[in-house]
Amino acid sequence: IPLSRTPRCTCIKISELSVNLRSLEKLEVIPASHFCPRVEIIATMKKNGEKTCLNPESKTIKNLVKAISKERSKRSP
Amino acid sequence: IPLSRTPRCTCIKISELSVNLRSLEKLEVIPASHFCPRVEIIATMKKNGEKTCLNPESKTIKNLVKAISKERSKRSP
Repeated sequence: IPLSRTPRCTCIKISELSVNLRSLEKLEVIPASHFCPRVEIIATMKKNGEKTCLNPESKTIKNLVKAISKERSKRSP
Repeated sequence: IPLSRTPRCTCIKISELSVNLRSLEKLEVIPASHFCPRVEIIATMKKNGEKTCLNPESKTIKNLVKAISKERSKRSP
């Protein structure tokens, strides 16, 4: 379980695995605060609701954000 | 309350107000799916935990994402 219950950082382990947009239920972005000095990105998977912390500086997350934005243009015309 | 409980789109009303990064607790990004044909972006406020749906195509959201990404470089060296 990569989530802690303390009012500190939520992520205690950050995955470097890539995440497929199709298998993603949602992405949570938590800005840095005085509880946690770093941005945290938590991906929730469709399959089992499993949560994975992602590295905000990874290509995975940049590609995901790009892919999500591009979905807009795929809406029915 | 801008959230519905049905397994459709989460947002029933989208705010065009701008959201300040400082007042933001987290940002949820829900990719388009067969439940909801559009990307949904839900901002949770620090003050009262209030949730607001944002327009993914607005400048607000683009600026927020940019500001959150930039926070990385502000971490202690």
